[in-house]
Amino acid sequence: MPNDIPDEEVDRLYTELDAEAEAGGYHLNPDREFTRGLVCGLLVNRDRYGYIACPCRLATGRREDDLDIICPCDYRDPDLAEYGACYCALYVSADVKTGKREAEPVPERRPPRPERKKMREERESTSAAPSTLAYPVWRCRVCGYLCARNAPPEICPICRVPRERFERFM
Amino acid sequence: MPNDIPDEEVDRLYTELDAEAEAGGYHLNPDREFTRGLVCGLLVNRDRYGYIACPCRLATGRREDDLDIICPCDYRDPDLAEYGACYCALYVSADVKTGKREAEPVPERRPPRPERKKMREERESTSAAPSTLAYPVWRCRVCGYLCARNAPPEICPICRVPRERFERFM
Amino acid sequence: MPNDIPDEEVDRLYTELDAEAEAGGYHLNPDREFTRGLVCGLLVNRDRYGYIACPCRLATGRREDDLDIICPCDYRDPDLAEYGACYCALYVSADVKTGKREAEPVPERRPPRPERKKMREERESTSAAPSTLAYPVWRCRVCGYLCARNAPPEICPICRVPRERFERFM
Repeated sequence: MPNDIPDEEVDRLYTELDAEAEAGGYHLNPDREFTRGLVCGLLVNRDRYGYIACPCRLATGRREDDLDIICPCDYRDPDLAEYGACYCALYVSADVKTGKREAEPVPERRPPRPERKKMREERESTSAAPSTLAYPVWRCRVCGYLCARNAPPEICPICRVPRERFERFM
Repeated sequence: MPNDIPDEEVDRLYTELDAEAEAGGYHLNPDREFTRGLVCGLLVNRDRYGYIACPCRLATGRREDDLDIICPCDYRDPDLAEYGACYCALYVSADVKTGKREAEPVPERRPPRPERKKMREERESTSAAPSTLAYPVWRCRVCGYLCARNAPPEICPICRVPRERFERFM
Repeated sequence: MPNDIPDEEVDRLYTELDAEAEAGGYHLNPDREFTRGLVCGLLVNRDRYGYIACPCRLATGRREDDLDIICPCDYRDPDLAEYGACYCALYVSADVKTGKREAEPVPERRPPRPERKKMREERESTSAAPSTLAYPVWRCRVCGYLCARNAPPEICPICRVPRERFERFM
């Protein structure tokens, strides 16, 4: 991919993303050259659109339409839980990072455009609380951290215990 | 403000507050001299009262009455969301920090004393769960982090995505 | 305790646990030699069982039966809140760390085996949300952080304010 992104800028964002990932219990793909390519793609998108849209998906350039695919995308965490990697394989699970497991091919879980539009309109049409919980709530049995996701996180971002220490709370 | 606080002590607390702020998704005011003055005020209050009461408000010296204005005060986050700065301007939003927006004058949102007293008594009169939620619950669409506040935080403290990635959850 | 754990390995885990503890608002026991002994015990258990079972309790070697006593155990946080130390005294409260208070003897709060088995079966028998909340939910009055535990955490892991700034939310 020919582009004008200086190497130092790629390295700077790489280092930043890596530090943030590790602090939050996430991991960049350990294949450094592959990952640098994706980080470079993020910077190309930042120049083009003004935000770091996913380098593996086609952005519209309208921020409000691309919000769910600004990296990290809304789909990263369910993909990490199910396949060991996000759609781009920029982020991988601990097992994949340490070579205990191979990442699987990740099918696109982003809903098609009309469905996304409908979901967004529903969200925006009301500032009131939804009448039912949109996601299960998980509780870390060690520190009590709560989060609402389809599956618990790989590690607790507060006390670092693994997924198996979470229980369904609501 | 003449006082006996040694410069090194001000610098030490400044550095500590700055590191904690950035780790949690907050920012100290980038005007270093202004901010040092406030940090010095915090230390004056610590000497006087035993806790770092807000340097811009009058403390009573009774910890239980001043709890809501021990820095960071209970009003910082709503003020950051609405005005780009806390009441003292010790903390500012990312937009204000980077100069994209100017902080607005921040009116005092702390309720008057009788009202605070009443609220505290209500809280203390029961250890049971309130029958209705006192604040809306927001969910980070990326990592599932939940928090209860009038508006979502500026960035997700877990995965660092901005406010626009939050949705109303309860 | 004679064992084959090299000193450097003990030091490595010690440093790692210490950094994680401080980042999450926890503290290792400041008695360095005592704590090194416990860390060594964790490594002995890791060699023996494949996971860092509590060095002060008898593990079965079946991970699913020992899950609640893999360090940090499910009982650390209530013990810290009530006694100022966990069962092993590997973790201590800030007051104990700074010498303001002495840790008290910590009785074993782990339920007996049949009760644990029953609780686990109940958890596993359903992936649905429990009909009532198993723990009270606490809210940090400063940043809105939510957690579900018997008592609020010693400090807010997000904005670092102390326990007294939490209120009952659900």
